Amino acid sequence: MPATDATDVKALLFDVFGTVVDWRSSLIDDLSAYAAQRGLEGDWTKLVDVWRQAYVPSMDAVRKNPQADFLTLDELHRRSLERLVGEFGIKGLTEDDLNYMVTGWHRLKPWSGVVAALERLHTKYILAPLSNGNVGLLTRMAKNAGLPWDMVFGSDIFRHYKPDPENYLGAAKLLNLQPGEVMLVAAHNYDLRAAQALGLKTAFIPRPTEYGPLQTIDFDATGDWTIVADDLAGIADQLGC
Amino acid sequence: MPATDATDVKALLFDVFGTVVDWRSSLIDDLSAYAAQRGLEGDWTKLVDVWRQAYVPSMDAVRKNPQADFLTLDELHRRSLERLVGEFGIKGLTEDDLNYMVTGWHRLKPWSGVVAALERLHTKYILAPLSNGNVGLLTRMAKNAGLPWDMVFGSDIFRHYKPDPENYLGAAKLLNLQPGEVMLVAAHNYDLRAAQALGLKTAFIPRPTEYGPLQTIDFDATGDWTIVADDLAGIADQLGC
Repeated sequence: MPATDATDVKALLFDVFGTVVDWRSSLIDDLSAYAAQRGLEGDWTKLVDVWRQAYVPSMDAVRKNPQADFLTLDELHRRSLERLVGEFGIKGLTEDDLNYMVTGWHRLKPWSGVVAALERLHTKYILAPLSNGNVGLLTRMAKNAGLPWDMVFGSDIFRHYKPDPENYLGAAKLLNLQPGEVMLVAAHNYDLRAAQALGLKTAFIPRPTEYGPLQTIDFDATGDWTIVADDLAGIADQLGC
Repeated sequence: MPATDATDVKALLFDVFGTVVDWRSSLIDDLSAYAAQRGLEGDWTKLVDVWRQAYVPSMDAVRKNPQADFLTLDELHRRSLERLVGEFGIKGLTEDDLNYMVTGWHRLKPWSGVVAALERLHTKYILAPLSNGNVGLLTRMAKNAGLPWDMVFGSDIFRHYKPDPENYLGAAKLLNLQPGEVMLVAAHNYDLRAAQALGLKTAFIPRPTEYGPLQTIDFDATGDWTIVADDLAGIADQLGC
């Protein structure tokens, strides 16, 4: 039987980077293999970690300047990368190389067991990512990884980045649902806190290796979430799928 | 081998009502069965035909009043239905009955062969509806009918109705694609004409029974479309899928 507080839920929305896909290992593997093939030298682990560290500040710059054009995460990734390859002294990159590296975010691999758990949840719920990634990125990622989304909510639909309320409430509205009929699934407490404050249901799973040795938070649930489980299969169990 | 002019195409966008699903037969069957079960009396074929005739004028009213809130197709269907049941003298409808009837548009059945052809096209292309239906409607329709979309472009994402350019160009932009990398598939020449004028590729298939005895147009291609085929399987053939 479903968890009591989840009986009204019709749709599950998923944070993606870290929750569904293992961006760090995927990118390190992808860039290292590509660099070896192209004869490029660089500290790819460090590059990936610093690239990801540019993520929140780059989105915040968009958020604080709402009168400017919205920049997608692909565009922010590209700008950060151009700066970082200079700082890292990586030489000999062509336009094709930069494009390949930026679209590494389109080829991220899911954590173990994700696709099977999503297939279980898909039988009973509408499933969609609710990510700061853009539609183009998330659509290609899903095709590459076999993620069975019914819809793709990229941040460029809302022209806002989470945790802005427009994303959570906008997704519920586009699905003809009340906030309480939607559950956000995330490995990040801040994301669930924003969703809960707007009336959405919440589900937490830990991803304690997401940031590798740099991880400092989100080892455990720090809020009163509707569901807490070890992984997506545990959420499917609790939802009776 | 793909048709020469289609070699750059990365995504196929589909008109839905009439092109992918047989709205008329589906709704007549759905409403007739429901009415029999509920003991409701009415001319359901006539109701469906007149309901659909309200479609273009109701969207045009939204289009001509852009400063007002965008109304979704579900909302327009509901308003038209409330008016028509009065005009048709249909008695005894509850709120649940009206909701059931409006969501009949979420349960439309695909034309024969559609799902198999989409599965073929899905192996090579990004597939998405580009419809005047809203996301909530189209997402549920796809889940009911097994349509393998990678993304769902409802008109409420763009807050415009086709043939406004925002929908065609907005979908290409959200997919990180140039207009010429996107092909619209439709059974309606007006829709393809709007897409072609904006630089999209075009594919026409006829649906000569879409409007039943009321059909007067779209028996044949009337423009210089990239592909013309008898059905979606024929498009898959020409695209080498």
